[in-house]
Amino acid sequence: MVIVGAGFGGLQAAKTLGRAHNVRVTVVDRYNHHLFQPLLYQVATAVLNPADISAPIRSVLHARNTEVLLAEAKSVDPRRKVLIVEGGEIPYDSLVLATGATHSYFKHPEWAQVAPGLKTLEDAVRIRERVLTAFEAAERESDPVRQRQWMTFVIIGAGPTGVELAGALSYMTRHGLPKDFRRIDTREARVVLLEGLPRVLSAYPEELSEAAKRDLEKLHVEVRTGALVTGIDGEGVTFGDEHIATRTVMWGAGVAASPLVRSLDVPLDRAGRVKVSPRLTAPGLDDVYVIGDVAAAEHDGKPVPGIAPAAMQMGRHVGKTIRDRLAGRPMKAFRYHDKGSFAVIGRGYAVGLLYDKWRMKGLPAWLVWAGVHIAYLIGFRNRASVMLNWGYTFFTKGGRDMRLITGNVVKRMPALASPTQAPALPAPARPEPPASRPAPVH
Amino acid sequence: MVIVGAGFGGLQAAKTLGRAHNVRVTVVDRYNHHLFQPLLYQVATAVLNPADISAPIRSVLHARNTEVLLAEAKSVDPRRKVLIVEGGEIPYDSLVLATGATHSYFKHPEWAQVAPGLKTLEDAVRIRERVLTAFEAAERESDPVRQRQWMTFVIIGAGPTGVELAGALSYMTRHGLPKDFRRIDTREARVVLLEGLPRVLSAYPEELSEAAKRDLEKLHVEVRTGALVTGIDGEGVTFGDEHIATRTVMWGAGVAASPLVRSLDVPLDRAGRVKVSPRLTAPGLDDVYVIGDVAAAEHDGKPVPGIAPAAMQMGRHVGKTIRDRLAGRPMKAFRYHDKGSFAVIGRGYAVGLLYDKWRMKGLPAWLVWAGVHIAYLIGFRNRASVMLNWGYTFFTKGGRDMRLITGNVVKRMPALASPTQAPALPAPARPEPPASRPAPVH
Repeated sequence: MVIVGAGFGGLQAAKTLGRAHNVRVTVVDRYNHHLFQPLLYQVATAVLNPADISAPIRSVLHARNTEVLLAEAKSVDPRRKVLIVEGGEIPYDSLVLATGATHSYFKHPEWAQVAPGLKTLEDAVRIRERVLTAFEAAERESDPVRQRQWMTFVIIGAGPTGVELAGALSYMTRHGLPKDFRRIDTREARVVLLEGLPRVLSAYPEELSEAAKRDLEKLHVEVRTGALVTGIDGEGVTFGDEHIATRTVMWGAGVAASPLVRSLDVPLDRAGRVKVSPRLTAPGLDDVYVIGDVAAAEHDGKPVPGIAPAAMQMGRHVGKTIRDRLAGRPMKAFRYHDKGSFAVIGRGYAVGLLYDKWRMKGLPAWLVWAGVHIAYLIGFRNRASVMLNWGYTFFTKGGRDMRLITGNVVKRMPALASPTQAPALPAPARPEPPASRPAPVH
Repeated sequence: MVIVGAGFGGLQAAKTLGRAHNVRVTVVDRYNHHLFQPLLYQVATAVLNPADISAPIRSVLHARNTEVLLAEAKSVDPRRKVLIVEGGEIPYDSLVLATGATHSYFKHPEWAQVAPGLKTLEDAVRIRERVLTAFEAAERESDPVRQRQWMTFVIIGAGPTGVELAGALSYMTRHGLPKDFRRIDTREARVVLLEGLPRVLSAYPEELSEAAKRDLEKLHVEVRTGALVTGIDGEGVTFGDEHIATRTVMWGAGVAASPLVRSLDVPLDRAGRVKVSPRLTAPGLDDVYVIGDVAAAEHDGKPVPGIAPAAMQMGRHVGKTIRDRLAGRPMKAFRYHDKGSFAVIGRGYAVGLLYDKWRMKGLPAWLVWAGVHIAYLIGFRNRASVMLNWGYTFFTKGGRDMRLITGNVVKRMPALASPTQAPALPAPARPEPPASRPAPVH
């Protein structure tokens, strides 16, 4: 039994099989940690630590029958029944593919460089660094046009990730950062959210999309729907006949299945996902299960959404299916239970749908969201640390001490103004020393 | 007033001057955060988060007369009175150089690649990644000789950093990691501490050096004193006529002053530090103060040690000197107050010297150390988070959920054994499934 990918789906499959004594399980992942992706945007916006939302796979899967291997899966050879990884091959009897999704830049792979997406911890740390570096550069910049460009942030795609990132980022420019800078007023930063479809959060009921848009605008996010992006480079973003000058673009638009499943040579849907059977196997391959974001599964004729709870349910289902099969019990078809989904807009408010019927918004939605996320985090330390950091951020209205640029980014800084101007430069815009006291430069 | 470097010394100088209304202060640093270096080894050994031991400089220095600039200082031109940074020049009236120390690989700059030191957050994250990756590689490795090499760790230099790193690393191999692996027993890992001088912690009284050595050996660290390293490469370390095969070497030996002070063209000591006047100015340059690890200061004929409290005292002294000078008050010579210094050996024990006379060891020393470090951390969130993480690590005897390899390291993994062997390979060494239950591979 080989499981590829220790995301929400793979981890549940491994845990379910960890209780079976007649199975030996090998979990293969290219990272050593399980990542709680729904909170990744909070690492990107300096609210949480990388370690708060991740757990080493080895420490989560401690069942005696389970082995963990740090390796990158390259392809599957279903005839020889081997998984090919960087540096070797792993034979399997049953295979579970749970490799998740990656970004899709449609037909513009070159956009990946200038508009990073948010899927891994490295992505999150990179976005945090870019955003903070942009403000540092704006503070140093003497040309007002370029300064404006540094202080403009564009997020492409208004799904949950884009909405959450835009809300958190705009909040930060208004509440956490202003006191830190002398020459720029971070409250003048523009956060623009571009969406090609007619509304934000298009997977939600229209009423909630409208509430989300209103709340984002209250947070000073400029929401532009029906905006199809045609160009992105280091200087800005073009959509329709408009151009926004910016140095910082983030990508939350296209999602495609991870490419590993292509090697199965089975029918895929447009997003590259395997059209799985009701038992979540790949067509024609009874011993290859495909779950989570790489599976195009259906339930009652409707597609199962690409969200964490769905992946977890699929993982558990596959684990049980394998146990049933070994015990000679009849195997069941997968049934998806829609418990709901939520998107956070800002400090203490969210929108969401509970059990596919109750629409929630504002603080009640945020409380449900927060409770569920704390409950599903792995480990006591992570829960305690997330609560500490949320509490701190909440009560300090955007506490400032996680604003970490780990890397050395000085090379990216603009040149200083001429020596006579800098740094005793144009008197700081805000805040002035009291006029009553003389302030000769020493 | 320009201050270069926001370490312990620079930050104290800036804070002291932040209360003066007739001074304008510019703090220049190439990172956006102040780093609490004494706890850096705990980031390297997966006990603390990077953000726990750092604070954004802007959030610490919020006085109205103080400006912060993210820039790398290149040189000083004392005649023109300008500081030259990457991308521009900054004129100064007075200059405080507090740029700290860097590693010295004696005459072997090529060792820097294979034996990283521990000075920045990037260093710490890199060492954490290397150590964890070595265990992942050992788990995959089928050749026992190479496996042994992966499981050998060499730390060069038994000053406080080396001792603390060795103790924490060895503790981790015995208490945190063993349950995580199936093929290797991490308790068999070798942690070797090499020191060229005849004893560890040579700045401490002999009695404490001996206590430290005994305690390290209780933690299974192999301590080798009088061991002069003559060769380091990707395969191992050579000293005397011995060779230790290892893939993971860490450097805690030589320290040299940061090179910026060379541009002053004043006499330097062998470690590249400026021989400062009693007022902490560079010889012949009354408006250039040099403090912290770049200063070779003396007090009562004895050298002031290169530790955080000394740097802080120098920073405060310079701040007061400048205020005195502006107020026309007489300026005072710097006096160093030795409050003590401590080195942690393992979970709950340390050795140290309080007020240069009381020798402490064991738990009392650890408690003083822990109290002082919590007290000197910056900000409520950092203190709370460090206490949470220490408490968690202490009570779980090396909790396992910070073991994060953020980067993608799969390329560094050794090849798998031939497909027939892996991963159903030699039956896992430990722990076996109970013999009473049949364990056919599914």
